[in-house]
Amino acid sequence: MHMQKGFVLWLTGLSGSGKTTLGDRVEEELKQRGYLAERLDGDLVRKHLWKDLGFTKEDRDEHIRRVGFLAALLSRNGVGVIASFISPYRAQREGVRKEVQNFIEVFCSCSLEVCKQRDKKGLYKKAERGEIPNFTGVSDPYEFPENPNIELHTDTASIEENKQKILDYLKGHGYIR
Amino acid sequence: MHMQKGFVLWLTGLSGSGKTTLGDRVEEELKQRGYLAERLDGDLVRKHLWKDLGFTKEDRDEHIRRVGFLAALLSRNGVGVIASFISPYRAQREGVRKEVQNFIEVFCSCSLEVCKQRDKKGLYKKAERGEIPNFTGVSDPYEFPENPNIELHTDTASIEENKQKILDYLKGHGYIR
Repeated sequence: MHMQKGFVLWLTGLSGSGKTTLGDRVEEELKQRGYLAERLDGDLVRKHLWKDLGFTKEDRDEHIRRVGFLAALLSRNGVGVIASFISPYRAQREGVRKEVQNFIEVFCSCSLEVCKQRDKKGLYKKAERGEIPNFTGVSDPYEFPENPNIELHTDTASIEENKQKILDYLKGHGYIR
Repeated sequence: MHMQKGFVLWLTGLSGSGKTTLGDRVEEELKQRGYLAERLDGDLVRKHLWKDLGFTKEDRDEHIRRVGFLAALLSRNGVGVIASFISPYRAQREGVRKEVQNFIEVFCSCSLEVCKQRDKKGLYKKAERGEIPNFTGVSDPYEFPENPNIELHTDTASIEENKQKILDYLKGHGYIR
């Protein structure tokens, strides 16, 4: 079953804010309900589609621009895209919004402390030791969404609650029944 | 309107064999009939999605592998993909066939002489002067499809005839009505 209209759920937030886990849950739920949904995330596209981009500001901008191109390709064909990217700069996210149909900015708000406590891959520790340059929250800024379509508190609310908030939004806006 | 099932029409053939023109016509026709269709070709993906790949054997293999990943993403969501790539090696094409749903190999058979006469971009002349290395038909082989789903003669038949052959195939196999 196709969505009545395609959309791009864009999960933005710090590393460790729970974007991936939440995105996976939303995908799972949509698929269980019979909808077509696709996940886009950094590991996936950097592994399968491009390996030439690093983590300088310029490369990260280009990375997000390309993801926007992919998201547009899918959403204009009635697919529900669930994209999870730190995407720390406002201009990056606004660039994608302009490219795709039905961009839904989901701000995964989570305190830096909680993100650092989770730090499953030890990235914050590495960044603090200077082993990862331009790391959002440590050596690079995160520009908060000024007017996100959905704001979630991924440090205090449960995954289930946040998933429900997203589904309510999709229903309320006629994307799903 | 979505296809009843997604597919990947894979147009393979020499540079100048008419893949792009034919692919554009098929897309146009499908869209006019209200179907969702997407074109993938070399210029598009190299411009918008990756710029790191050149034209060595290794890079061209990786290029086609990535295109296969994209085609899979679209076709599994019920989109009709029309891909036009020289894709001169059998192993490249078989690799894509394994990755995607409903791979339809369309061999655009055209004599090298006719391709050279067309040579809109002057590529054959450049290749013959040694300015383009590994150029299919000049300094690099084209491995003919052994058992294509559709074989077209793009040097002798008209574009209209070839388009019709493809549409007949799609109808005969239940992709379109």
